[in-house]
Amino acid sequence: MAGETGTFSRRTFLNWVGAAGGSSAVYQASIALGLLPASDAVADRAALPNLDGARRSVVILGAGISGLACAYELERAGFACTVIEASNRIGGRNLTIRRGDVVDEAGYQQVCDFDDHPNLYFNAGPARIPGHHRLVLHYCKVLGVPLEVFVNENRHAWVHDSVAFEGRPVRLREFVTDARGFMTELMAKAISPGDFDAEFTEADAERFFLFLRRYGDLDENDVYRKSGRAGYAEGGMVKPAVYKAPYDFREILKHEFWTRGMHWTAAEDQAAPMMQAVGGNDQLVRGFVRHIESPIIVGAPVQSIMLREGGVDVIYAKGGASQTISADFCLNSIPKHLLPGIRNNFPADYLKGMESVGRGKLMKIGIQMAERFWEKQDIYGGISWTDQPIEQIWYPSHGIHDNKGVMLGAYVFNAGTCLEFGRLTPEERLARAIAQGEKIHPAYASHVQSGVSVVWHRMNHLLGCTAVWRRDTRERWFNRLQQPEGRHYLMGDQISYHPGWQEGALGSAHFALADLGKRVQAELGGDAVHA
Amino acid sequence: MAGETGTFSRRTFLNWVGAAGGSSAVYQASIALGLLPASDAVADRAALPNLDGARRSVVILGAGISGLACAYELERAGFACTVIEASNRIGGRNLTIRRGDVVDEAGYQQVCDFDDHPNLYFNAGPARIPGHHRLVLHYCKVLGVPLEVFVNENRHAWVHDSVAFEGRPVRLREFVTDARGFMTELMAKAISPGDFDAEFTEADAERFFLFLRRYGDLDENDVYRKSGRAGYAEGGMVKPAVYKAPYDFREILKHEFWTRGMHWTAAEDQAAPMMQAVGGNDQLVRGFVRHIESPIIVGAPVQSIMLREGGVDVIYAKGGASQTISADFCLNSIPKHLLPGIRNNFPADYLKGMESVGRGKLMKIGIQMAERFWEKQDIYGGISWTDQPIEQIWYPSHGIHDNKGVMLGAYVFNAGTCLEFGRLTPEERLARAIAQGEKIHPAYASHVQSGVSVVWHRMNHLLGCTAVWRRDTRERWFNRLQQPEGRHYLMGDQISYHPGWQEGALGSAHFALADLGKRVQAELGGDAVHA
Repeated sequence: MAGETGTFSRRTFLNWVGAAGGSSAVYQASIALGLLPASDAVADRAALPNLDGARRSVVILGAGISGLACAYELERAGFACTVIEASNRIGGRNLTIRRGDVVDEAGYQQVCDFDDHPNLYFNAGPARIPGHHRLVLHYCKVLGVPLEVFVNENRHAWVHDSVAFEGRPVRLREFVTDARGFMTELMAKAISPGDFDAEFTEADAERFFLFLRRYGDLDENDVYRKSGRAGYAEGGMVKPAVYKAPYDFREILKHEFWTRGMHWTAAEDQAAPMMQAVGGNDQLVRGFVRHIESPIIVGAPVQSIMLREGGVDVIYAKGGASQTISADFCLNSIPKHLLPGIRNNFPADYLKGMESVGRGKLMKIGIQMAERFWEKQDIYGGISWTDQPIEQIWYPSHGIHDNKGVMLGAYVFNAGTCLEFGRLTPEERLARAIAQGEKIHPAYASHVQSGVSVVWHRMNHLLGCTAVWRRDTRERWFNRLQQPEGRHYLMGDQISYHPGWQEGALGSAHFALADLGKRVQAELGGDAVHA
Repeated sequence: MAGETGTFSRRTFLNWVGAAGGSSAVYQASIALGLLPASDAVADRAALPNLDGARRSVVILGAGISGLACAYELERAGFACTVIEASNRIGGRNLTIRRGDVVDEAGYQQVCDFDDHPNLYFNAGPARIPGHHRLVLHYCKVLGVPLEVFVNENRHAWVHDSVAFEGRPVRLREFVTDARGFMTELMAKAISPGDFDAEFTEADAERFFLFLRRYGDLDENDVYRKSGRAGYAEGGMVKPAVYKAPYDFREILKHEFWTRGMHWTAAEDQAAPMMQAVGGNDQLVRGFVRHIESPIIVGAPVQSIMLREGGVDVIYAKGGASQTISADFCLNSIPKHLLPGIRNNFPADYLKGMESVGRGKLMKIGIQMAERFWEKQDIYGGISWTDQPIEQIWYPSHGIHDNKGVMLGAYVFNAGTCLEFGRLTPEERLARAIAQGEKIHPAYASHVQSGVSVVWHRMNHLLGCTAVWRRDTRERWFNRLQQPEGRHYLMGDQISYHPGWQEGALGSAHFALADLGKRVQAELGGDAVHA
């Protein structure tokens, strides 16, 4: 039924199958993917030469995840490393906030007032680890960081749109089930078995209609009337189950949820299951620190980076004085948008690349609740979605049935909203998040005990949340910035195809280490690189 | 385009909307569901009268979850309880198997040979708790049973069909993404904006097409070409992502996965998130036992149940002798298919009901693996699906990155397959499960250290796995069996709309308690029933 005639081309169906790739392409691709995991396992050590008594020094700028991984790998291979960190804290954007922690924001100082309890923390940075982020998982394993399952999708959570359903939140499972049901009912009615191409056998077509029926949970007449997938309206245990009537599909179409949230946990990095470190995701930072012997100098903003033949000279401030450190190589994870403000002798196009790539913005607000009221609504972990500026509410995956819990009261991806929240005082931000939370959970405010906001573009020494690559900047600048300039490497999640993810940071670190390793190997003349 | 003409009725769309219920029905239902959680919270105590010095005795037959819950509630209300259990073990089908445990099967004796380690156990019975199973969760909370998240869906797990894709397993996320993509592409092409009714506005129709595009991750021409939701073929971190080509949809249609497994985690009791008790689900049994003071007499098969005016007399065997116990009430969770074999004076129709309802069959095999090889394939918890007799393979949700793990090597729902496996020796069952596992995980056998099978219809004192209710037996017999016969109550998950679930067992227990409570209250003449 392509085009305006309203008739379904008999060849169309098979053409679509064809457009999706012939058998051989399909099989090649599936084999490629199917076999990938076994052959692409993370090596025990980064590809670095064994120095065997030779001396090489590396200065690492930034004690975030990429810098820490480099120090860990390099020192095990015999390199002399120094890590320089501008802030007084190790970890970069891997930040877990607990009682007494100070949020180092420009202009406002917040001190976290959560209760002192191991379950009461707030992952202001990375909060969830997908099963295919192999480097993150590798380091969690070798550094002894215990992991637990993180709930990214909760079908009992709420989806809220200020306009649809008169502004009332509905259960995620109802929304998704009704949308699927209606969509497949429409499809089952719009297509006839006679429409299929001869190569699409009658048996195929029959299976297709059965597929639709199962997919949408349609009745034997291919009508979507009700589904247990939406949950019960009542009963189901000692009385017969009563199912809710489907929603009006036009209300569903009005709703913002399907534009993003509904497919969230199908996304490449959001699919179930996800994991988190037990006790807070900064356990990965602590794991690195436990295993690193090289000096990590904190409270030491870099003032100058000078490339020279055979090395790099770095000047940093520490205790009111300037210190100079010279090394054979520099691995630099300082946010690229801050580097033009540091004295340097980078080539003009290298700097232009750094300035051309966008600066990310993100905001999170953590709120300690006196009571885990969400558990009384059958919600254990996961996310509620709203079209309000707070975008998402998260329920903790851990501490089930504790008295208290720390929720995420806002997770703002929209840059304009981040700017707007950033201009408010922390108290005003919290008040706004609470008011919006009330639309989803009546009496929300009554449970609030304490809140803390992290507006990443206002955090000292960061002033942004990773890089925003557009297609044009990616094509023009990515390789330029990924390749070393002399003996200086830009790195971190900003120099990856996964900005904002620890896996991007670690991938970038390993990319730089591999290149550095090859060069040192060439200098040493040997070939004893660890596999 | 309903019917044979291939044209799309202009009224059809709105009729479908109408068929799905008008606005007022929709709103009523949604309000009903939306408000349910707050108003339907589990009361702190079962609805039992406070005896205030009056004496009432209850004999409870069966120390499974329903029996334990009854003892717990009744003794707190002042009732004198005795629990009689045929087997030497408390818990019924809530069974966690660890090193040294004996599997009490008729004909074969297995002793579990797993390593002695807190993470190496196998939940042979209930293994996952949904967020809306409020009674189970209530008891976990009040009995101090710590819970953790259980992975029920893993998009990195495998789906395998012996015929489709030439018998090669494919990743669940690839299968689901391609199926969605193809289905919505077909739909977007088969329907024209002009087909919609005038009441379905142009803006609605536009949003519908955008909805489809997002739903299937179609490109700007509404063609499904590739999707990150299926995962990467390669790259994505330091190199650009390469996406796999979509599979041939005819292969997808051949596959058994979409007939059940694909929609599994949309089902009412299978939706994310689910939970498990830390250390094994029999922690709930242990929690009850810690809090129950009434005698629980094990190894005591019931020989006779005699109803009489004002009470029930039960004879049970213990230590080679017969013991008699008389009580004011009897709460009986003995499997209904075993009761006709016990001497009784039940009315004929009561017995006929017990005999009319089917006897369930289920089988699980737990296997200790020397290595958590699945984690090298990005699999952390969850289920792989196959059309082979083993049906499912489960990966443990706990003990991430441990050296070893206990997998579920088979979860057989098909009754015929259960019978077939049941006729084999435990060694033969394990060998068969391993051979089938090899189709999904090459070198599977090389990791196997030890296995144990639980064939529920062969387990002593159970000889079945709950009740199988058909529509006709439900209509004819459910109310008859749910209502007490004199002072005798049949209970357990078998007398619920959730056979095979602890929530059904607890719901049934509370139903019986509420009825018993009302009767005692009436006898006492008061009205001080706990709310």
